[in-house]
This record gives sequence, structure tokens and C-alpha cells, in this order.
Amino acid sequence: MVGSIEVDVMSDKLNGKVVPLPEEFDPIAMISDPLPPQVVENGGIVDDEAEDKQNREIVLGKNVHTMCLAVTEPDADDEVTGEREAYMASVLARYRRSLIERTKHHLGYPYNLDFDYGALAQLQHFSINNLGDPFIESNYGVHSRQFEVGVLDWFARLWELEKNEYWGYITNCGTEGNLHGILVGREVFPDGILYASRESHYSVFKAARMYRMECIKVETLASGEIDCTDFKAKLLPNKDKPSIVNVNIGTTVKGAVDDLDLVIKTLEDTGFTHDRFYIHCDGALFGLMIPFVKRAPKVTFKKPIGSVSVSGHKFVGCPMPCGVQITRLEHINALSRNVEYLASRDATIMGSRNGHAPIFLWYTLNRKGYRGFQKEVQKCLRNAHYLKDRLRSAGIGAMLNELSSTVVFERPQDEEFVRRWQLACQGSIAHVVVMPNITVEKLDDFLNELIGKRSTWFQDGKSQPPCIAADVGKENCACVMHK
Amino acid sequence: MVGSIEVDVMSDKLNGKVVPLPEEFDPIAMISDPLPPQVVENGGIVDDEAEDKQNREIVLGKNVHTMCLAVTEPDADDEVTGEREAYMASVLARYRRSLIERTKHHLGYPYNLDFDYGALAQLQHFSINNLGDPFIESNYGVHSRQFEVGVLDWFARLWELEKNEYWGYITNCGTEGNLHGILVGREVFPDGILYASRESHYSVFKAARMYRMECIKVETLASGEIDCTDFKAKLLPNKDKPSIVNVNIGTTVKGAVDDLDLVIKTLEDTGFTHDRFYIHCDGALFGLMIPFVKRAPKVTFKKPIGSVSVSGHKFVGCPMPCGVQITRLEHINALSRNVEYLASRDATIMGSRNGHAPIFLWYTLNRKGYRGFQKEVQKCLRNAHYLKDRLRSAGIGAMLNELSSTVVFERPQDEEFVRRWQLACQGSIAHVVVMPNITVEKLDDFLNELIGKRSTWFQDGKSQPPCIAADVGKENCACVMHK
Repeated sequence: MVGSIEVDVMSDKLNGKVVPLPEEFDPIAMISDPLPPQVVENGGIVDDEAEDKQNREIVLGKNVHTMCLAVTEPDADDEVTGEREAYMASVLARYRRSLIERTKHHLGYPYNLDFDYGALAQLQHFSINNLGDPFIESNYGVHSRQFEVGVLDWFARLWELEKNEYWGYITNCGTEGNLHGILVGREVFPDGILYASRESHYSVFKAARMYRMECIKVETLASGEIDCTDFKAKLLPNKDKPSIVNVNIGTTVKGAVDDLDLVIKTLEDTGFTHDRFYIHCDGALFGLMIPFVKRAPKVTFKKPIGSVSVSGHKFVGCPMPCGVQITRLEHINALSRNVEYLASRDATIMGSRNGHAPIFLWYTLNRKGYRGFQKEVQKCLRNAHYLKDRLRSAGIGAMLNELSSTVVFERPQDEEFVRRWQLACQGSIAHVVVMPNITVEKLDDFLNELIGKRSTWFQDGKSQPPCIAADVGKENCACVMHK
Repeated sequence: MVGSIEVDVMSDKLNGKVVPLPEEFDPIAMISDPLPPQVVENGGIVDDEAEDKQNREIVLGKNVHTMCLAVTEPDADDEVTGEREAYMASVLARYRRSLIERTKHHLGYPYNLDFDYGALAQLQHFSINNLGDPFIESNYGVHSRQFEVGVLDWFARLWELEKNEYWGYITNCGTEGNLHGILVGREVFPDGILYASRESHYSVFKAARMYRMECIKVETLASGEIDCTDFKAKLLPNKDKPSIVNVNIGTTVKGAVDDLDLVIKTLEDTGFTHDRFYIHCDGALFGLMIPFVKRAPKVTFKKPIGSVSVSGHKFVGCPMPCGVQITRLEHINALSRNVEYLASRDATIMGSRNGHAPIFLWYTLNRKGYRGFQKEVQKCLRNAHYLKDRLRSAGIGAMLNELSSTVVFERPQDEEFVRRWQLACQGSIAHVVVMPNITVEKLDDFLNELIGKRSTWFQDGKSQPPCIAADVGKENCACVMHK
């Protein structure tokens, strides 16, 4: 299975040319056996690597220790016998098989697993790091800023911000985009209040806590969209403080798109002028899809918004998480005057940044282009409708928001089935996010299995399909009361 | 050069099986031409992709736009002519050549560029994402937690914390480690004051600003170590508030190791009991090296410290930035009781995390083991001494801290030379960080070139080598006054 594994040259490298010791250097000052003893609670030492694995007390959830792949110290003769090489190759081969299997049965997370970056494999030999600001050269030469800025330009154009008016960078994930957008908002309005609908991604509330910001949760409609009546009611008593608003371009669970135009109108109607609010658009999920759907409220910097973020590993597809963050240059310039830490010329959250991600994104954007993405969006929306319709015909409660490819439906009763298809669940509902790699064939496999299993779950009449009216509205529910 | 580029199957995928349109779906509701117009300042439209590139006003530094690789829209016939394929292959081939060249001439950043992950190339086809907590399984099946926890165990053992007493995760970089460690400190002591030496990494001060913490900068000795006399003086008037202390295990510029034992003694002497302070050790640079040097003050959780972080792309070597963060489980448990956002069961900073990095680290740790790292540390320290001695013999001011492989010396006068060797500079000093890939041959090349160039820089007697006594002490300076 792993015949292509290259023989490593590590041993040559480790045993490289011996350098004369400097006079003042004392080699015996090195620890003679660098292997740290294994510590146990009574202060003793254990020799058995396998011991102690079952004891870990994790209060947070399932203990991954029981299945972890321990790092073990090489034996002195490992290089001679080749045993270690063989062991590692077998671990990797097993792991690769499991990845193929898990990738095949995947529906619940919005990751496009359909990519081919074979042409880029040659770059894995380099330690590519875009330290700090994408627009400022660093002395570290092994970077990919030229690709990064090309990608940023593409997104700035998509969201209609001029090259000389935007600033941005390629982030590690959607969370970093939210952390950055909300931080910029807070620096623009230090005493601003953060508003976000209760179906916003948890990173928004994490940011509020990290940044010690006042944060007000706004109610949502059954669709998952922000409820602007409640928003207005919560703005009114706080008119003396600026507003920082998180607008969801696709919520995590229901794929709901907040109505950006209505949010802006609500702010204006409540008396907030444009210099008294900052809007961050969390487009992690649909930020790249929505520009290609005509009926959608347009995400554009021609409207009074401050920043937009999108994930790169979702609709685009990428081997590792990444994202794109675009904001107005004026905000970053304001920061650079006011904030001491920008003396270091770093307006990003993370200092060192993965230089491979920009190349993956650049490669896909160049191949597909705006037109290619439009085709894929169309395909996803079609397939999402197909899935919702087939669920409904089978008597299964289901909802699909108009601008979305996230199909919400009754949570399957069998946790094994949920895990097998890697469905994300919350309360009584589960969802499938139809990404470009989700074909009709895959949906048919899933549907046939679900419908088959379902008939056994409810055959004895003891249990009933759950009511999901509270989650998605009774018109989308197919429980005994609502069908 | 790029003969191995695989022909992509994108066109087949894009033109996959046509799905019947759902009845309520209106295909003409899609935007007919998804290509966004290029916006310019006067509101008009430009067609020329090349235009507008020189105009960007970046107040922060050099404009990378002039050299960026634009993403261009594919022509309709690109798939037929193969022109796009050829263009992209040529861009990548040129880029790869530049990476080889830039990797060869690299001395200034602490990145070990010597790795061979060929065996892992097969994994680049998968979108591996360790969402949230490493110890809690997620429904997304394409993860690498089993490798991650193996790596974490290895580091917990290195820093002497038991498996059932630690929590940690693999971060995106050293900065994320500092952001996390300081956040944990703040959650343990919400009104604590952050103390850090002025030579601490800028991410420490960034954290203070992000988290709205009071922060006091402490002076340093000429070596770059924290000055504990000044630390004591600054602690005394603030005895009513808990202390959160950042301890540097290798400062960025001088590679200075703060004396952890003296820091703890200073806290104790000033009246801080162990329940009134939290120490985060920023071991980004030497956190993995110091355990193998006998004379070094040991970094261990047997001392009253709260967290340790280290970078994975530095001494270990990795294609992309990453790091390891280890803290006490009790702190995370305390957080999980007190902090609302942990209801989401995510105690990391980033929600989605690169699942490839843990596999790279696992692979290297397994191959080298504690003993392999000890050998490499020894080699680096030897080579650093060699470099310092040769600089001194050539009459060049230079300093090497006892526990460090960072050689600080006079900043070369020629910026072209600085860029060529990718030296990190600050004021009058530059440094070379001797990592395992820096051989004596490479150092000799560098030294010979430096000494040769230097004789031309100062030959006319108009300029003199800079005085670096203020940076590194006069005993290490070789300027006209101090030599």
C-alpha cells in the first residue's frame, strides 16, 4: 500500500560532518540521557509506555487517549533493522485508508472535499511562512505573498472594494476572520456594543469574551435569520453607544442568510448614522456563494460594512483550514496610528501564517474563475433542492432556506448512522451541507440508507419521528401532529 | 521542470451529471455574468487587469502589489488550448526555483528547513481538520486527533506533566500559544497584571491589548534576559493584584533565556504566594532545545508555572507554521465551568485547526526521538560557537548567550547582503539562528562573503563598523572605541 514511501536521508543528516568543539564549550554539560522519565502521580517512574492511558480524567468529553498513536523512542538499532520505517509506513497506510473511507461518507460539514492539488505536491518540501502583513515584505524569503495578494485582489473585486482601499490577509480559518473583524470593530469603536443573532457562530461570542466587550444576543426567526424587530428593540435603549454588528452570511446550523439591507435599515431607523456603527459580515459558509445568487442581498463594500470574512476550505476546498479576511484600509491605517502593537507592523491575529494555503487558493481560483464558481453554486443549489424534495416525499420533515445549500431535517435516531455520515446535529435537527463534491449519486446512497433504516426505527410504533416545528417552523415538520 | 504536473480532471467534474431542476427553482435567477466589474475610484469600469497596480497607497510599507501574481479569469477555450495549464505550470516552476534559492540562502529566522516529508505527500489529497478540542471527538471524521494527542503526550512528558493533569493542543504558530497562555492566565486572574520583559515577542503585548489587560514592561539585561531587580521594583507597588508573567525561553532577537527560577524567587520574595501568580513560558524558540542543555534552568511543570508553548516549525521543522501548547488541566476545567463559550466545548483560540501539522510533528518526533533531538541541539550549539568565534577572529562584534544558538553581531551595511542571507535585523544588530539545517559549510560561505564584502564597505575609511555596545555590552563590541 505504501510502496512509494521514500527512504529517508535523516541518518546521513544527523551524522553530518563533525565540527571541532569551541574551546569554551563543555560537551559533558549536556544531559547524558535526554529521555525524560515518565512521571506518575506518586512521583515514581513507569517504564511501560502503554500504561496510564486509561486513567486520564477528561472532564470535557470522550477520551481520545485510548485511541491515540503514541510517539515512541527509536531503538538504537532501528536504522539497521528498518523496523521503525516499516511500522510508520503501516500506520500511515492504515490512516490513509480510513481517510478515504471517511471522505467518502461525509455530508454534514461544509467542506468541499473535491480538489486535486497534485501539481502543488512539489512545494511540500519548503517551509513557506508569510510572516505578518501580506503587503509588507519581510526578510524571510521563503514566502508566498505574491500568491496571497493575487487571491486578496480577487476577493476584493468580488466584494467590490478597490485595490487602493482594501486591506486583508489569508487567515487560518473562519474563526480568525471573525476574531479579526470584531477586533477591528472594537478598535474603531472602543466603547461599542457587539450585537449578534443567537444562531451566530460561537467564535463571535468567544471574541466578545476575549476582547471584554459588551455583547447583546438578538433573537432569530424560524429560518435562522436575525429578527430585526428584536434587533431594533435591543438597539433602542443603547443609542448612546456605537454598534458593532455581526451579520451572518450563512449560519452554521441552518445556513440562514441575515438580511444585510434590513440590518442597515434598522440601524438607520433607530438613529445610528454611518459613523456610529461597524458591520462585520461572517461569510464563512456562503460568502463566496452568495455573490452568484441573484435574489440574495448583495454583500458589497458599496454598502456601509467594515469587513467580510470567508473560509477557504469550505466552498473552494483546501487540504487544511484557511480563510480570507477583507477590510477597509482606512480602518487598518487608523489602527496603525493608534495601536502600539502595530509598531511591529503586524495587523494580523497570528504572526506566522501558513504560506501553502494562499497557493492552494490561487491555484483553484485561477482554474475555475468567477464563471466556474457560478456553475458550482448552481449545481449545489440544485442538488440541495433535490435532497430536500426527496426527504419531503419520504415523509421526513425538512427545511431549505431559499439562498442556501444547507438542508435541515429530523435528526436520525441512530447515532451510528449519524457518525457514519458525519452529520452535524443540534437538538432534534441534523443537516447536510451540499458542497460541490456532493453528487446526486451520493445523496441517493444516503437517502436510500436513511429511508431503509428509518422504517426499522419506527416499525414497532413505540417511538415516533421527532417534532422539529420549534426548530424550523411547523410547515417544515412532518411529525404526527404537523404532517 | 514541471513534467510531473498531473493533468487535472476538473473539467469532468464541473460537467458532471445534469440533475433535473426542482420545480420551484428558477435557474434564470442566477446572475448571467458572474464576473464582477473592476471598480475604480471614479466609479467607472476598467478592462485592463494590469492597470491600477501602481496606485495602491500602502501606508504600512513596501507595496507587494507590484509583484503579485494576479488571478485571471479563464478564457472559454482554455481547456481546449491548454494555455492556462501551461501558464500555471510555468509560474509554479519559477516559484519552485526561487524557493530552492531562497531556502539555500537562509540564516536569519529560526526555522529548521531540513526535513523530508515525502512519505506524507499522499495525505495532501485530504481535507484534514481537527475541529475544536483535541480530546473530544467531533462528528467530522477526516481528522488527525490520534496523531495530535500522541504529540501532546510527548511534550507533556518532556515538560513533566502527567497525562491526567495536562491539557493542550497543536496551534497554528507560536503567537497562538502566547495568546492562549495569556488568556488562560487572565481567566484564572481576571484582574491580574501582565508582566513581560521589553524584549518579549510582540505577540505578548498584542495579547495585552486584545484582552484589555493592564501590562507592565520590565527592563532587560544586556544579554536580553529579564532584569529581576527591575521586576521586583515593578511588582512592589502592585502587590494587591495577582501577577501574570510571561517568561521567555529564548527571546526573538538575542535568544536570551529568562531565569525562570529567579523569576519565581522574585515573586515569592515580594510576597506573592503560588495562588497569586500565573507564569506562561514562551518557549517558541528554545522550548524544545532547553530541556537538552544541562546548565539551563529547567522548564518543568514541577515548578509553579501555568503553561508552556513552543513552535513546531522552528527546531522540529515543518512545511507550515505550527506550535504546541501545554497547560494544566485544572485551568481548562476551571474555564469550562466559568466561561460561557466553553459550552461549545472549545478551549482553543482557533476553531478549525490544520490536521496535517500534527502528522508532520508526529512523524519527526517518532523518527528522531528525545535522543535524536539532543544530538541536534548539541550540533546547533557547537555550530553557533563556531560562528561566533570566527566572527570575533575577523574583528566583528558578536555575542552568543550561553544557552542559545542565536549569534548576534554587527548589522551588515549592505541591505542587499542582508536580504540575500535573510538576516533579521534590529537597530545596529543582526542575528543568525543556528538551526539543524545550518551546516558549517553554509556558515563558511556566509562568513567568507561577509568578510570579503566588509573589507569593501570600510575601505575608504569614510564609514566605520557600528558600535553595538548598547545592544550587547561593550565586551562584545568591536567598534573603534571598544575593540
